[in-house]
Amino acid sequence: MTGELRVRPVTGVGEVAEGENLGELIGDAAAGLGAPLRDGEVVVVSQKVVSKAEGRLVDLGTVESDSRATGLAAQLGKDPRMVQLVLDESIRVIRADRGILIVETRHGWVCANAGIDASNVGGADVVALLPLDADRSARRIRDELRETAGVAAAVVIADSFGRPWRLGQADVAIGCAGLVALDNWSGRSDRDGRELTATAPAIADEAAAAADLVRVKDSGVPAAVISGLERYLTEDDGPGAAGLRRAESEDLFR
Amino acid sequence: MTGELRVRPVTGVGEVAEGENLGELIGDAAAGLGAPLRDGEVVVVSQKVVSKAEGRLVDLGTVESDSRATGLAAQLGKDPRMVQLVLDESIRVIRADRGILIVETRHGWVCANAGIDASNVGGADVVALLPLDADRSARRIRDELRETAGVAAAVVIADSFGRPWRLGQADVAIGCAGLVALDNWSGRSDRDGRELTATAPAIADEAAAAADLVRVKDSGVPAAVISGLERYLTEDDGPGAAGLRRAESEDLFR
Repeated sequence: MTGELRVRPVTGVGEVAEGENLGELIGDAAAGLGAPLRDGEVVVVSQKVVSKAEGRLVDLGTVESDSRATGLAAQLGKDPRMVQLVLDESIRVIRADRGILIVETRHGWVCANAGIDASNVGGADVVALLPLDADRSARRIRDELRETAGVAAAVVIADSFGRPWRLGQADVAIGCAGLVALDNWSGRSDRDGRELTATAPAIADEAAAAADLVRVKDSGVPAAVISGLERYLTEDDGPGAAGLRRAESEDLFR
Repeated sequence: MTGELRVRPVTGVGEVAEGENLGELIGDAAAGLGAPLRDGEVVVVSQKVVSKAEGRLVDLGTVESDSRATGLAAQLGKDPRMVQLVLDESIRVIRADRGILIVETRHGWVCANAGIDASNVGGADVVALLPLDADRSARRIRDELRETAGVAAAVVIADSFGRPWRLGQADVAIGCAGLVALDNWSGRSDRDGRELTATAPAIADEAAAAADLVRVKDSGVPAAVISGLERYLTEDDGPGAAGLRRAESEDLFR
C-alpha cells in the first residue's frame, strides 16, 4: 500500500572470505531467494561481513599488550590483548568503568570496545575490527551492486551500538552511500507554520535499526533489503555516515 | 517473503482531542485504508497524539516561571515558561549548555527538554508534555484495539530522541505493551558456541525507528503498523518500555 516500507532478510550468502565481492554475493543471494534487488532499494549490510571481506580479522594470539592496556584490562576485568586492540583503534577513552570500555574510534564513533566484536567470526580467539572507512566500504559495495546486479541502490553498513541511559543495543549506520543519512528539516515548517529547527531524523540509523529487526542474532543474516525509502536516495554517494557524527564542539557528552 | 517486515503508515486519523479512544481511531483509520489491523501486528503510536488524547497540552500563557527557571532560561536563551515546564517534568538536569537542556524525566528517560514539544500541536503557544505513564497508555491502547477492532496487537508509544555523539534523532519507545522490548540473549550462544553475554537488541526501540521511516515529519501520520514481528509478541502486557531504562547504578553517563 501507499507509503509502505518493506524489509527482507538476505539469507544464503554463506561464509564471507577476505577479498570477496560483497555486492555480488548479496545480489546473487537476493536473486536466489526469488527477490532480486531493484533500483531505489537500500541494502543494509552488517559490519561483520564487511570486516570479513576486508580482512579486518585479528587473532588475539598475535597481539601483545603494552603496560597501559594491561593495566586497563586488569581494572576492567578484560582480556589485555582485546584492550590493546581497542586502544589501537581509538583516539581517546571516554569511559572505563564497571567492566565497560567506551572509546572514540579513529573514525569518530563513540562506542563500546571500538566496535570490536568476538561473536560469530569463527575461531575462538579471532575478533573483527570495524572497517577502516565504512563510508568507503559502502561506496564500494554500491558500485559492486551496480556492476554485478545492474541496480542503482543505496548501501548502509550497520553495527549494533549500546546507548547511554537505555538498555540493549540498536543498530546504527557506520557507513552509507547513496542515501540521505540525516534528513535535516532546519528551515522547513510544521503544519502550523512553525519552523522545525531541531528536526532531523537520522534516516540511515533508522534504516539500520529496521534492518536489524529481520536479522535474528544467531542466524548469520548478513544483509537486509529495504524498499520504500526511494525519496531518500541520491544519485551521488553523498557524505555518508560521516554526516551523522556530532562534532566534539557540539557534543555535551565527551 | 519469509521473514519479511512490513511497515505501513496509518493516515486519516484526523486531529485527536482529549478523551478520544485512540485504539478505535487507529483501527478505524487502518480499516478505512483497506488494511485493517491483524492479530500479531505492532501498532506504533506517536507520543504526540497520545499526549493530545490524554490532555497533556499546556498553554505557555498559563505558566509562571520561578527564579531557577528564569535564570536557566537566560543562560540557555530559551523561553523561561518552557524551561519551567521542563524542570517540573524532571527529577534532575543532566546537561544545560550551549542552548541545550538535557534532563532525566520523572519517568526516568534522559532526553532534551523533558520530551516537551511545540511543533504540530496547534496554537502558537501550546506545547505537549509526555504522557504521565506511556506504558500505561500503551496498555490502554492495546485494550482499546482488542475491544474495538477485535485484534491481539502489541503497542509501542514512540518519541524522537536526540543522541549523544550522533546528529539528528531516532525514534525510541517510551511506552510498550505486549511486545518483548529487550531481546536479551544473555546465556544464549552464537553459531560458534560462544556466549552472547552483551547481546540484547532493543526491539521496541528498533520498531519505533522503523515506524518513523514511514512518517514524513510534516504529514501528521500519527501511527504505523508493523507486521513480521510476531515472534516478539507476548500474551501479557509485560514490563513495557520501563524494561529499557538503564538503572543509574549501571549507567556511565549521569
